[in-house]
Formats: sequence, C-alpha cells, structure tokens
Amino acid sequence: MSRRIVVVGGGAGGMGAAGGAKAADPDSEVIVYTSYDDVAYSPCGIPYVHGKEIDSFERLFLASKQDYVDAGVDVRYQANVTSVDVSRKVIQVADAGEVAWDTLVLATGFNYADPGVPGGDLGGLYYVKDIREAIEWDKVLDTVKSAVVVEASPLGVEMVTALAHRGIETHLVDPSPWPMSEMADPDIMAPVEDSWSELGVTTHFNTTLKAFLGDGGHVRAVSTSAGDITADLAVVCTHKEPNNALGVTAGLKTGSTGGFIVDEQMATSAAGVFAAGDCTEIPNGLTGVPLQGLTGSHAYAQGKAAGINAAGGARTYNAVYVPWGTAAGKWIIGGASFGETTASALGIPYVVGSAQGISRARYYPGVKPVKVKLLAEPETLRLLGAQMVGGEGIKERADFLAVAIRFGLTLHDLAGMENVYSPAIGALNEPIVVAARNGVDTVQG
Amino acid sequence: MSRRIVVVGGGAGGMGAAGGAKAADPDSEVIVYTSYDDVAYSPCGIPYVHGKEIDSFERLFLASKQDYVDAGVDVRYQANVTSVDVSRKVIQVADAGEVAWDTLVLATGFNYADPGVPGGDLGGLYYVKDIREAIEWDKVLDTVKSAVVVEASPLGVEMVTALAHRGIETHLVDPSPWPMSEMADPDIMAPVEDSWSELGVTTHFNTTLKAFLGDGGHVRAVSTSAGDITADLAVVCTHKEPNNALGVTAGLKTGSTGGFIVDEQMATSAAGVFAAGDCTEIPNGLTGVPLQGLTGSHAYAQGKAAGINAAGGARTYNAVYVPWGTAAGKWIIGGASFGETTASALGIPYVVGSAQGISRARYYPGVKPVKVKLLAEPETLRLLGAQMVGGEGIKERADFLAVAIRFGLTLHDLAGMENVYSPAIGALNEPIVVAARNGVDTVQG
Repeated sequence: MSRRIVVVGGGAGGMGAAGGAKAADPDSEVIVYTSYDDVAYSPCGIPYVHGKEIDSFERLFLASKQDYVDAGVDVRYQANVTSVDVSRKVIQVADAGEVAWDTLVLATGFNYADPGVPGGDLGGLYYVKDIREAIEWDKVLDTVKSAVVVEASPLGVEMVTALAHRGIETHLVDPSPWPMSEMADPDIMAPVEDSWSELGVTTHFNTTLKAFLGDGGHVRAVSTSAGDITADLAVVCTHKEPNNALGVTAGLKTGSTGGFIVDEQMATSAAGVFAAGDCTEIPNGLTGVPLQGLTGSHAYAQGKAAGINAAGGARTYNAVYVPWGTAAGKWIIGGASFGETTASALGIPYVVGSAQGISRARYYPGVKPVKVKLLAEPETLRLLGAQMVGGEGIKERADFLAVAIRFGLTLHDLAGMENVYSPAIGALNEPIVVAARNGVDTVQG
Repeated sequence: MSRRIVVVGGGAGGMGAAGGAKAADPDSEVIVYTSYDDVAYSPCGIPYVHGKEIDSFERLFLASKQDYVDAGVDVRYQANVTSVDVSRKVIQVADAGEVAWDTLVLATGFNYADPGVPGGDLGGLYYVKDIREAIEWDKVLDTVKSAVVVEASPLGVEMVTALAHRGIETHLVDPSPWPMSEMADPDIMAPVEDSWSELGVTTHFNTTLKAFLGDGGHVRAVSTSAGDITADLAVVCTHKEPNNALGVTAGLKTGSTGGFIVDEQMATSAAGVFAAGDCTEIPNGLTGVPLQGLTGSHAYAQGKAAGINAAGGARTYNAVYVPWGTAAGKWIIGGASFGETTASALGIPYVVGSAQGISRARYYPGVKPVKVKLLAEPETLRLLGAQMVGGEGIKERADFLAVAIRFGLTLHDLAGMENVYSPAIGALNEPIVVAARNGVDTVQG
C-alpha cells in the first residue's frame, strides 16, 4: 500500500514539502490542506502590486490548480485542520472528519503579533497576507489619503515604500531608533530613511503604538507616544509569530521563539511528524541562537527537505547564516548573518571592515553605489556578518557572504579574492575586497 | 636615503604598483615611465564609447595628472625605456639617459598577436589600445559603412557588439567554431550569437584570415578561407601576447606563455625586479597551467602586490581561479576557472550540473534569465568551473564561484546554500543552487 503524506499548510513550506515528497516517492499519496482558496502564488509580491511596480495580482500566481492535479498532489482548499493526534496518526478536518497519515508535515506558517492595543477590531486595519484579501484592499488604497504603517519590519519597510510610491501620505511608527533594527545597522538604513523623506514619508521612531482610534467602527487615527496621527488606514506589520497552536496541542516541542524544534531532517519531537517554514525555529550557524520567521526561500527549502524525508528520503537542512535583502525606498539593502547591532546585543566581539564602492565602471550608465560592511572575529578575522546598501548585486553578494561565513572564510581570504572587471557589469575594485582589505589594515594598524 | 622604485608601464599593473609602493613606503621615490600621453584612464571602456553606451571619451579618465603629483608619484609621459640592466640596477630612457633604481616593477603589458598575413601595413587596420588613437578612430567610425572584426577574443566580442550598436555593417571572422572558444562553451555563446544576428552581424566561424586587401594603401576587403569580405575597416582583436622584450633582453625568465615567471610576491627571477599584469604569467589554481592576459582587475591587484613588495612590504598574490564576465550582444556572459571545452582539452574528468533560472521573481519587471552550468570532479563533486549567461548578477556570481573553487566547495555545499528571496532582487530559487542540486541528482542517479 502506498504511503500517505499529509501536509498542513499551502505556503512555500507546505508546497515545497508536497513537491519534495512526490519527487522522493512518486507512488505516495500526498494531500495538502489549506484554509485558503489558493496555494501557488507569491505573497511576497503583494506589496509590489500595491506599489504599482507590478501591474496585476494575476501575475503573482505561479501555477494553476490543474498543475497540482497533474503533478499528483491533492490540494484541499478552504479546509481547516482542527487537531492532530500523533499517537493515532490522524488529523481532524472541519466538515471532513478524521484523516489518517503515515507521515505528517506541519507548515502552518505565522501570525502577525497582536499589537495589543485598544481598537484592534476597527475597520481599516490591514494585515498583509492572503492574496484574495489583498485584491480587495488594493481597491481600498485608491480611496485612502493617509496611512500609518505600524512597525518597520521587513514587510513594514516594503509597505512604506509601496504606499509612498502610490502617492498616499504615509507615516511609519516604530518603537526602535531606526527601521529593521533587528537585522540592519543604522548606517545601512540611513540612506533608506533619506529616500523615504524624498518620497514624502513621515517616520516616527522611538515611538510606541498606544491605540487605534475609531469613528463609526473605522480607524480615523493612530494614537502613539508621540501624539495622534490621522489616517484612513493602518497597515499592521508587527513581527511574525509561529502559528504553532495545532502542533503545541498535539504535544510537539517548541523552542524559545515558539517555533517547533526540528532536527537536521526537519523532524519534530513526534515520530513521523516533520515541520517547515515560519512555524519552526532553526539555529543560527554561528551563535546557535534559534531563528524564526525567515524568508520564503528558507521555508521552501525546509519544506523540500521535510517532504523528502517524510517520503522516506534523506535530505539534510543545515543551520542558517541568513542571507537577506530587499528593496527599500530608493535602495537595495541586504546582508548575511548579523550586523553590529546584533553582535553588540549578543556580546560578540568583532572588528569591522567597510568600503563605499560602485557596481560598474564609474563612467558606465546605470552605475550604483555599493556600501559593504564586514564583521569579523578580532583574532582570527573570520567573517561573522555582513551589511550592505546599494543599487544592484546586493542579493548575489549576500548569498555569497552567507556561504563565506558558513565555510569560515576570513577577511584575509576576501581581501585576496579575484573579481570580474568589465565596465558594464563590474568595477575595477570589488567593494567586498576593499572592505575586507580595510578591515585587515585596521587590525594590523 | 629614500628608496627609489621605478615602474615601467602606466596601465593598471603599473599604476597599481605605484600606488602600492607609495602606500607601503611613503618616503620612497616612485617614478613611473610610460610611452603614452596618459595613464589614469580605463582602456576597457573604449569599446563602449565606440558603441555609444558611453557618451564621451572624457568619462574614461579616472584621475588627473595633478592627482598623481599630489600623491607623490612622479609619472614621466612619452618616455621610452629602451633597456634594463639588472646587475647595475639601472634603466636606459630614450632622451633621458640612465636612471638608477633600488627596486624595479615591470608592467609592460601586452601586444596584440601579429595576424601574420599580407596587408598588415594597410591603413584602416584598428588595434584598440591607446585612448588618443581611439578618439581619432571614433571619428573614422562615423564614415565607415562596413567593418570586419578579426577574432572573437573578449575584445573582439565587445567590438562586434559596439560596431553593431553603432549601425555599422559588421562581420566577425574567427578560426574557431564559436566565439571566445578559449574561455566559453558553445551553449553559453549560442544566445550571444543569436542576439548578434538580431543586431545584423554576420559571423564567419571556422574561418581563417588570409590577407587584408588594399586599394590606394587603405583596406578595402578582408580575404578569408570562406571568401573576401568587403570592408572599410578591420578591427584586429587577436590574442594578447606579453610585451616582454625589455625583460627578456635583461635576462628575466619567462614561461610557456612568454610571460615573466613570478613568485607569490610578484618577484621575477632577477633580484629586486618585480612584474605585474599582462607581461607576467600566473598559474591557474586548479591545474597549475600558466595563464597570461587576464583582466585589468588582475593586473591592478598584481601591481599593488608588486609595488608593496618593491617597497619592502609583504603582500602575497595567489594562484588564480579567474572569474570573468562581459556584456556580449544582448546578454551578459561570465564564469570562473574553466568550462567543458577547456576541461576536455586538458583531459580533466568532470560532471555537469546546470539550470536555467531567473534573476528576480518571475513576475517582477526587469526579470532576466540566468543560465548556470557548474563543472565538478566526478568523485568528490568538488567545483572545477562555472559558465553562465544571463542578464544581471553574473559578475557577482562569477566572483563567488571563483572563491568557491579556490576553497574547495562541492556541489553538495552549493546545493545546500541559502539564498535571498525578495521579488525585486532575487527569485525563490537561486540558479546556482538548482544547478548544483541537478548535478548531485545526476551523479546519484
């Protein structure tokens, strides 16, 4: 009899798992349960449709429902899984009863943290998540004059930029001194803040949310420690919390972030149960500190591993070094592992090498600045982290530097690396090389 | 008394040496001799001015003569060094006599290989090198209706693209079956050839040059094994040969390429004499095969090391893994170390992992294809080389993959690497990861 693999969740983690399972064991029965109407779309694209960089939500759909049928993956839409029983190996599905599984993958994703202030039930509070809701909200944006984005999380940064591009009077409220303060250093974000100013955004840092103020059941202002801000709309971009209720009730072990603890096979504490994506936590490779709420790419790769292993395969998913990047205002920001802020907070000693470079020959059209800052262990000069702001090539450098950290490369190694020089695509001096050299020179006096 | 460091050559290698020497020993006297009128410009930009991507030759000048005066570097223009005496530690300079040195850096660059056919002394034969000549040739291009580019070297590829952009009827003659056959595989160059067709270029591969045919002392046609091609201009882009005459006469050892043999300090076989750039040869890190005629970035870094060491410092220059890349037709091509053609020619066994990916989310404006092909050792899956064709991020990936080769990373390592996913800058699946995974899957069946 064929193995039945049940996947709960239709996001990047869940669909990665379904694909991985089917590839590893084509004879298996793979069933995906999602509470939504759709699976194969890119939620990460939603802010860019709102910002009019992408002209239609249709473009965000990556595959049709028929594609999954053809691939032999049975997706059950609008299906709420209400409980998991790991000893009897069954789930309960609302309106469908008990479904048995041989192996289970939980990819239940995240919830936005409750802002925990009065007025949370008012109309006009937008939590960016489901594409069908986003399509409706996009119509609302045509009528909105002013909006407040709550918290400068990565999504918050994208939404601020999108709303400003859309011509909406946009405010950002965040309790930290600068945006994305959990990931990015202030010097990296300063040009982003400047470009927001040029776009007409008003930022309110070191400012806490106190309430959403309503009028006739609809938000009319956002109350903060720095005063009230009139707004027709509040986009709530609080941090992601693992959507762990199903697994917790079933007895799965969770870690300090609330994410399911998984081993290198993405197996949870319960036999035959795997997990992937934002409902899990994964250790940072340098510090062992558990991380939760990584990117869609992480969720997809974790899902793939979980699905393959759920189907009897053997795929390892390693500790993470977290390359990251995004468009922000007029810039691209990115990095790998952590920056100075996090290193200081964790008490990790470090030295810095940084450089302000360029992306092409300086006379070539389209040349953009590239600032690279590298953190390294003081004695060994082993790379600990990287932070960048620029215009092109940030994503590829972030990917590279995360690998460099994983494999223990030092500033000496990076200072000696070769680089492509060709006017249209690369400058004589690669900014990573110059940053590393500057770091070495600083240490050696 | 201060040390006198003499540098022969004002290109990337020579000016890198001068800067490195002055930085390492600010009290030293640094004198650069160049036979040209200028030093601080980018010859690599010349094809792009001809192609009108860059609007003026003025932009190619990176520093003024005063900048070098201010930096304490004494540049002697239009100064021909006629001989080197390594035992007496002097050079002879035409019209200036003998100049003594404590240490010497030879950065005498390259000459284009003589095409070795009749008609080489005709007018209308353009060797792209000096900016002053390029400015004059650019005026000629306004009057040219048809041109033949001789050899599909990297410069030849750039010049074909430039002349086509300029609206000149352009022919390419090359004895190999495809362009840049010494570096690039045919599958990488196929889209480039297609885009040349779209631009109206006529290519003649497997075709040898027989003569330049003249009329009144000026070229009127190029004779080839496939017939005569009428042309007002021939751009001769034969391969680079080391300009080694000065050093050879002085007794410096050269290798199989004719380039000066240098150690890791860029020291030649003569005490106190260093060399850098196209006049040297450097071993490939994987094969030990000596390579000559690398990029301006290599020359600059070698020059820096040579200059620092000539000034009593200690800077190592390692074996090379040669990341490369350039714009070609409508594409960007690039890679690291070698491709299938070279591996086969050298008898190096390899397996391939390749993938056709994209540079951003597929719905994001500006998304471009990225093809990645990875070569690895059959048993260990250790990376041997990479070849790519795409639209953006090729340079940064080439830099990365050259480092990956240097540090012995395997396809397993690359298949497990994390990647940035953010719609405007990176796709869910990084093409390097998919290529590596495909390679692993191919080997494991």
